[in-house]
Amino acid sequence: MRHAIKNGGIILEENAVVNITLAPVQSNFSVYEALRVLNKHVVHLEDHVERLKNSAFSIGLKLPKVEWKEEIDKLIEKDGITDATMRILVVGTEKPLWFITWNTLLTYPDSYYKEGVSAITYKGERFLPQCKTGNLLVNYLSREEGKRHNAFEALLVDRNGEILEGSRSNFYILRKNVMKTAPDEKVLDGITRISVLRAARELGYTVEFSAPKPEEIWTADASFISSTSMGAMPLRMVDGKECPFDYEKVAAICSLVRKWECIDDQS
Amino acid sequence: MRHAIKNGGIILEENAVVNITLAPVQSNFSVYEALRVLNKHVVHLEDHVERLKNSAFSIGLKLPKVEWKEEIDKLIEKDGITDATMRILVVGTEKPLWFITWNTLLTYPDSYYKEGVSAITYKGERFLPQCKTGNLLVNYLSREEGKRHNAFEALLVDRNGEILEGSRSNFYILRKNVMKTAPDEKVLDGITRISVLRAARELGYTVEFSAPKPEEIWTADASFISSTSMGAMPLRMVDGKECPFDYEKVAAICSLVRKWECIDDQS
Repeated sequence: MRHAIKNGGIILEENAVVNITLAPVQSNFSVYEALRVLNKHVVHLEDHVERLKNSAFSIGLKLPKVEWKEEIDKLIEKDGITDATMRILVVGTEKPLWFITWNTLLTYPDSYYKEGVSAITYKGERFLPQCKTGNLLVNYLSREEGKRHNAFEALLVDRNGEILEGSRSNFYILRKNVMKTAPDEKVLDGITRISVLRAARELGYTVEFSAPKPEEIWTADASFISSTSMGAMPLRMVDGKECPFDYEKVAAICSLVRKWECIDDQS
Repeated sequence: MRHAIKNGGIILEENAVVNITLAPVQSNFSVYEALRVLNKHVVHLEDHVERLKNSAFSIGLKLPKVEWKEEIDKLIEKDGITDATMRILVVGTEKPLWFITWNTLLTYPDSYYKEGVSAITYKGERFLPQCKTGNLLVNYLSREEGKRHNAFEALLVDRNGEILEGSRSNFYILRKNVMKTAPDEKVLDGITRISVLRAARELGYTVEFSAPKPEEIWTADASFISSTSMGAMPLRMVDGKECPFDYEKVAAICSLVRKWECIDDQS
């Protein structure tokens, strides 16, 4: 039976519950982080904790003082975890409720990286895009709409007709020596996004912080998405049409991003 | 000990919980209704059930078949309820989870109606305004911001600088023989709003469906908000400044709205 941590105590995962009569539960007054555990080690943990603090601060949620590494290690030991996808959730009840839960490591077939994946565009934008809060309905609905079209991801097109991000990823296009992506203040400052920006610069790209419009996908060399679990993943189809797909360009970025994950221990 | 209903079974309220590892729970893929129970009778129940269906349909949540009146009556009997505020929640898990919970009837002092209440304006708008979904963070944050200013309500000002609704109410201004409020498609079609529109027409107002801008508050005769628990409630202060307040005008509307609640039995 899988376990979880609730406010510092080890519990059965089935007891990782919240009461639906509490206003903060009813209103998604909560923040979260999704982590990657590789070989018993949480990748970029400090960055995740920092972002958790920023998300909480932005919505006025008072974070409890928690030694996240210790707590995560407790769970890793209890359940004998080697690789996993982990989730921290803090609910802003009067005395905050916090949880650490886990699942098998989310990975994707090699073919997704070699052949690219498909996406749809979806009209919608997140409230408070810089925070990871529990307010996730637009992400959920866009992803479900994607599934109905056999698409892996949904690209959120905002009121200005620009693609800010995907339902669970950041979004980029490559054209000649320029990489274009939405500016920091309009999106979640993805932890993998930081690595993508660094990789692009090391590979000689100029980074242009301007959200691409869907039509730019067709004149780009390649478009791709990134997230903690995906790394950098190329797009092959958008809204049912094949899009430009320069495999080598995305693969070069992806391989740097993954390399830095593994040497994160030493940094 | 207070009880609740979960998928047709009577449980202790403390067991009205959801597991935080479920994606629909994490993503507010849920719909709800807040009901008023007066003298063991749910006011406008059919309208609430109809709206629950519409909310669910809009987000693609498959509602379970439930005889809501029977289920509510079970809870009324079990806990010996006379007057209460009740909440229906349906979470769109694979097999939907549904709950009925209750609390003491939410009422307000007479002085709120006679002297008016205060509100702040807050920049924000709801995603899918016509649905009552669990995606409520903007409502929660705006209300908390209001509390910090000792204000009773927060009026949500959208991207066009128009007041569509309050954090938990609809919004109206009265000027001469015109009542102005946001059009149906931009707001939650409040059940009390329907009564307010009917009352305004019976009292000889022309209803103009156009969302008021904050500055119009200062040249109106009166501004007010409405909800299931408030009925129609006049505003006396907005953003810390006293606003025009014609008590009689709002009181006339409020008294019709409350009258129809009581004769809802016979309709």
